[in-house]
Amino acid sequence: MTTASVVGGSGFTGGELLRLLSGHPEFDVVQATSRSYENKTVGSVHPNLRGMGLRFSDPADLESVDVLFSCAPHGVSMEHVDAYREAADTVVDLSADFRLESEAQYDEWYDGHDRPDLLADSEYALPEVNRENLPGADLIAAGGCNATAAILGLAPLFDHDVLTGAGRIVVDLKVGSSEGGAGGGAASSHPERSGVVRPYAPTGHRHEAEIEQFLGTGVSVTAHAVDMIRGASATCHVYPEQPVSTGDLWEAFRGSYEDEPFVRLVAGGSGVYRYPEPKAVAGSNDAEVGFELDPGNRRVVVFSAIDNMMKGSAGQAVHAANVALGFEETAGLEFPGLHPVGAP
Amino acid sequence: MTTASVVGGSGFTGGELLRLLSGHPEFDVVQATSRSYENKTVGSVHPNLRGMGLRFSDPADLESVDVLFSCAPHGVSMEHVDAYREAADTVVDLSADFRLESEAQYDEWYDGHDRPDLLADSEYALPEVNRENLPGADLIAAGGCNATAAILGLAPLFDHDVLTGAGRIVVDLKVGSSEGGAGGGAASSHPERSGVVRPYAPTGHRHEAEIEQFLGTGVSVTAHAVDMIRGASATCHVYPEQPVSTGDLWEAFRGSYEDEPFVRLVAGGSGVYRYPEPKAVAGSNDAEVGFELDPGNRRVVVFSAIDNMMKGSAGQAVHAANVALGFEETAGLEFPGLHPVGAP
Amino acid sequence: MTTASVVGGSGFTGGELLRLLSGHPEFDVVQATSRSYENKTVGSVHPNLRGMGLRFSDPADLESVDVLFSCAPHGVSMEHVDAYREAADTVVDLSADFRLESEAQYDEWYDGHDRPDLLADSEYALPEVNRENLPGADLIAAGGCNATAAILGLAPLFDHDVLTGAGRIVVDLKVGSSEGGAGGGAASSHPERSGVVRPYAPTGHRHEAEIEQFLGTGVSVTAHAVDMIRGASATCHVYPEQPVSTGDLWEAFRGSYEDEPFVRLVAGGSGVYRYPEPKAVAGSNDAEVGFELDPGNRRVVVFSAIDNMMKGSAGQAVHAANVALGFEETAGLEFPGLHPVGAP
Amino acid sequence: MTTASVVGGSGFTGGELLRLLSGHPEFDVVQATSRSYENKTVGSVHPNLRGMGLRFSDPADLESVDVLFSCAPHGVSMEHVDAYREAADTVVDLSADFRLESEAQYDEWYDGHDRPDLLADSEYALPEVNRENLPGADLIAAGGCNATAAILGLAPLFDHDVLTGAGRIVVDLKVGSSEGGAGGGAASSHPERSGVVRPYAPTGHRHEAEIEQFLGTGVSVTAHAVDMIRGASATCHVYPEQPVSTGDLWEAFRGSYEDEPFVRLVAGGSGVYRYPEPKAVAGSNDAEVGFELDPGNRRVVVFSAIDNMMKGSAGQAVHAANVALGFEETAGLEFPGLHPVGAP
Repeated sequence: MTTASVVGGSGFTGGELLRLLSGHPEFDVVQATSRSYENKTVGSVHPNLRGMGLRFSDPADLESVDVLFSCAPHGVSMEHVDAYREAADTVVDLSADFRLESEAQYDEWYDGHDRPDLLADSEYALPEVNRENLPGADLIAAGGCNATAAILGLAPLFDHDVLTGAGRIVVDLKVGSSEGGAGGGAASSHPERSGVVRPYAPTGHRHEAEIEQFLGTGVSVTAHAVDMIRGASATCHVYPEQPVSTGDLWEAFRGSYEDEPFVRLVAGGSGVYRYPEPKAVAGSNDAEVGFELDPGNRRVVVFSAIDNMMKGSAGQAVHAANVALGFEETAGLEFPGLHPVGAP
Repeated sequence: MTTASVVGGSGFTGGELLRLLSGHPEFDVVQATSRSYENKTVGSVHPNLRGMGLRFSDPADLESVDVLFSCAPHGVSMEHVDAYREAADTVVDLSADFRLESEAQYDEWYDGHDRPDLLADSEYALPEVNRENLPGADLIAAGGCNATAAILGLAPLFDHDVLTGAGRIVVDLKVGSSEGGAGGGAASSHPERSGVVRPYAPTGHRHEAEIEQFLGTGVSVTAHAVDMIRGASATCHVYPEQPVSTGDLWEAFRGSYEDEPFVRLVAGGSGVYRYPEPKAVAGSNDAEVGFELDPGNRRVVVFSAIDNMMKGSAGQAVHAANVALGFEETAGLEFPGLHPVGAP
Repeated sequence: MTTASVVGGSGFTGGELLRLLSGHPEFDVVQATSRSYENKTVGSVHPNLRGMGLRFSDPADLESVDVLFSCAPHGVSMEHVDAYREAADTVVDLSADFRLESEAQYDEWYDGHDRPDLLADSEYALPEVNRENLPGADLIAAGGCNATAAILGLAPLFDHDVLTGAGRIVVDLKVGSSEGGAGGGAASSHPERSGVVRPYAPTGHRHEAEIEQFLGTGVSVTAHAVDMIRGASATCHVYPEQPVSTGDLWEAFRGSYEDEPFVRLVAGGSGVYRYPEPKAVAGSNDAEVGFELDPGNRRVVVFSAIDNMMKGSAGQAVHAANVALGFEETAGLEFPGLHPVGAP
Repeated sequence: MTTASVVGGSGFTGGELLRLLSGHPEFDVVQATSRSYENKTVGSVHPNLRGMGLRFSDPADLESVDVLFSCAPHGVSMEHVDAYREAADTVVDLSADFRLESEAQYDEWYDGHDRPDLLADSEYALPEVNRENLPGADLIAAGGCNATAAILGLAPLFDHDVLTGAGRIVVDLKVGSSEGGAGGGAASSHPERSGVVRPYAPTGHRHEAEIEQFLGTGVSVTAHAVDMIRGASATCHVYPEQPVSTGDLWEAFRGSYEDEPFVRLVAGGSGVYRYPEPKAVAGSNDAEVGFELDPGNRRVVVFSAIDNMMKGSAGQAVHAANVALGFEETAGLEFPGLHPVGAP
């Protein structure tokens, strides 16, 4: 068995990682750290893990493991990365600390970077679009939730030359409250957060940097909080320069994703679920991607839906680790989600 | 007192109209019709109106009134409009049957039109943008919910020359389940509809016709169902041809709305509610409109939020009738909404 | 006009009071205090009141008014009551500080009492059951939300001798998140609080003291948090000593409530809303009360539903003030609620 | 591999069974039937199963399998049971058709019974309390959702003589909308069903018969619909005849459940999740059971929470089949649920 630890295990992402790793055929979880819940059982914070015997330990006392997953907040990972790398052969970081390529980007979008020397060494992980970089990687930056949703929707259009970067690209995001993490203040309290359609990042969402870095073109991101807990839905409005048919679009998306274990194309058809929806993938590592052509406006609308806790963070991290370590890609990630399911 | 009747009073919009008219200082409700609930009390369908003595009557037996409000579905109003006009001096229709100007538009966006001769006689009613047409009007077509949200957000930009119609305009809508009306099938059942971000009109939303007719330019509409009951939120992504400042935008929006009794500008500031949100206006006839400049993308994002049952239908109809009949504009529409409030 | 002030105006109950008083035909709101939001507009906290010009002021600087409504938390009112009474002829307190009759009860259920000398002078206010005590009262303790729901359901059975106090009385409560007030920690965050059926007061709910004081008998209260924002629903399971018929029950409830402006009897019938439901009264000052006889178990089940923000606090306070000051009982409280409405 | 079929596979319970069986190490699903969706893929109805190749077939053409699971509605299983038994060695029925012991009970609680001759042959399955009856059983009636919640909460008190059946037992249920099944009318539409606390079975809930049959004593059941999709929560209020301590209660519940793989005792402690909650077990086959002593009222409150789709139907059926066929009890049922999770 490959030994693993989870730094920051009491947060939402940490809990999901502990759930995935404890059910993973290749991993043996030997440590979960938490500053706030030291010595408490994992199940006292994550009720679904009450059956797990593990207790949180002090993040200052890292055990030696094969793989360390860090769920520390942005800015903390870069501070402790040497300790992480000393403790583990492979570090998978779920924060934004190692996702961008240059110090300049961190200066522009974040509060700068303490360890710009490591940026060139880390591998951004969104396996569907760059799995070839991951085998053997020892510092992996799992892609951000909203960026993942947007990139999965848009990449096939660039890869198949439907888009070239000349036109406007609007990415209108709708996300669940788990993106705000555990705790939170008045804005995330149940009375204030329930039933919202709240523009929480009207412009300047930090994931815009990731999307633009990956696609090589500018995008106009606006993010709204809506009434769900898990889930990120990206609606991308794009205007191809050349006329495009529905057949062209199917070709592009099938070409990119037909062999992908975690991507489903959903576009039209009958029944209740005709386009991608976060609730159709809730709890799973699957992404749904679909589209509709709007000939009158010469527009293509692309929809992409993921569970931000899974495909958007913990699941993506495990997927990346599977690729990096040579495991079956789907190992530990087979849960297909639930139906019916509400606002998971 | 001005006498009023409500045709189609057992639907959601009909119930709201009955509530508004029964609390209105100028109106006396003398009839509510329903084919399905004839002889039942209004309160047996609308529990909030249990104190109202009225019973539903047969729509074939219309009483003579000053104002008839029709909440019949699209297609039914045009069929019965002669009977409506015989029964009442003023007809306010809440369906789409008299909103568009030409038969050709109905051929394109709906199933044609039975009474194209009347299209020139009816007045589209979105009082903030065309109240001058309403005094004395005898056939009024209250503006549609999603169109109202979009037009309120975009009109100031055209009126103040921030936009000229040359660029792309994306209207990304998020709407509540009451837009689907009472009843409904599997897709609107609670287990399937809860927690959704569901693209229900990816392209080709019929309100696109209203918006385009009013603004005189093409717009790219996509509508999503989200987990609320009341509410329509429009996020409009626009790219002005000329550079624009935040000050220019405030000038445009203040210029259009500073004296409007039902429009609030909400853009930034502190606290939980910084931009327009449907829950901030739920139950009221108010619209919130706000914006954010995205200099990096040369984009302006405009947010607009209404209660689709109020500003988007029943409230708008009463507002229009107030103007048409010379009443105080806010008569019967003073309720300010609730805080806190969930997914109303 | 009668002048009024609201102490603690930035909380949920304070906001509702400000809304009610500003729409009340007899009151003129001259002050709203808040320690946290001094100098901010009322609308910056309560978005539905953005049209109200008032700004929060320091609670240490109370203006002289006719009626002061205190929304301060439990324990604070008793500390400042002399200042309140100096500032106003009539004080209406919405906390629990003056609801119980004796110091011993506060020792048992709360953290004791600083001003036991005033307990005999204050009037508990649940107008349906004790309005005769209110005219001229100058220190009024508005009844608690959950106690109000339970008492309204049970009092008719005692008043009409269906119950005598000999048998077990179970009061199973389901309440919304607004009962926890603004702010709150992890347990009331949206991800943790959504979708719950959470026993938050399995036993020993403090309102048990109010119910027992009023009914003169012991009750077994258990309170659950459920997924709504407003609303308190009490299901009372009682076992009459003597056989009772449905007719007897109708006689009891009609006898108690047929002339009450704010109580509706809802028991059976057709349609969707057959028994009391919080959402049927959300936003209004109405209570719904209903029942069902269970002959096989010799049980009567009584259901009672209120909006905890209205009939359970702010509405009840205004109702009590209306009676105390000789105004129309329903003044300022006519809003009938909404249909459809979600989890308000 | 053991072959299995699912009759009625397009309903909610059928979908969950298909999910569980397709991930089960011992079962091979060879058929799923549906009258309404014949020839459609399983994934066209259950979006989480889009990866499953299976198509629905006609229930009139049953294939020969080792185990047939019937998700047909009440009344249908009894009509087709001969065909089921001809097709399969073992029939697991998820309806109520074979849960009660006598024809008289069906006459009292249901619409009678067509095949009373089989009632003695079928085994009621709630493995925690009667697993000894299941090995080798060939007609298994999986226990009902609400009955399961109530029995799991109450059985330990009877088994350990805390209760003897002399006192009143109130079972106050709160359940999710999935209990109503797919489709549904106005009452289960999203606008009417959201945010409810709705007494849908004030008295006379049919599961009362199951609970009473199992416990051998009368219970007073009242069921409320609340705003979740999955989940059943039972709050049982009981009054032991003899004084009982918290220690006695722990002894009773630990005695009954400490070795049970699917029951967790949750009573007090710190953190957000202190008592049983449906969302803590959503998606899993786990039940949470807990209690609180109310010495002042000589009452014990017992809380029990399950996912009605899992422990209350599909999971219970698989658990029963595992025991009947000699498989590992937890096979195919290891998914621990999610955290955070909303109203699943």
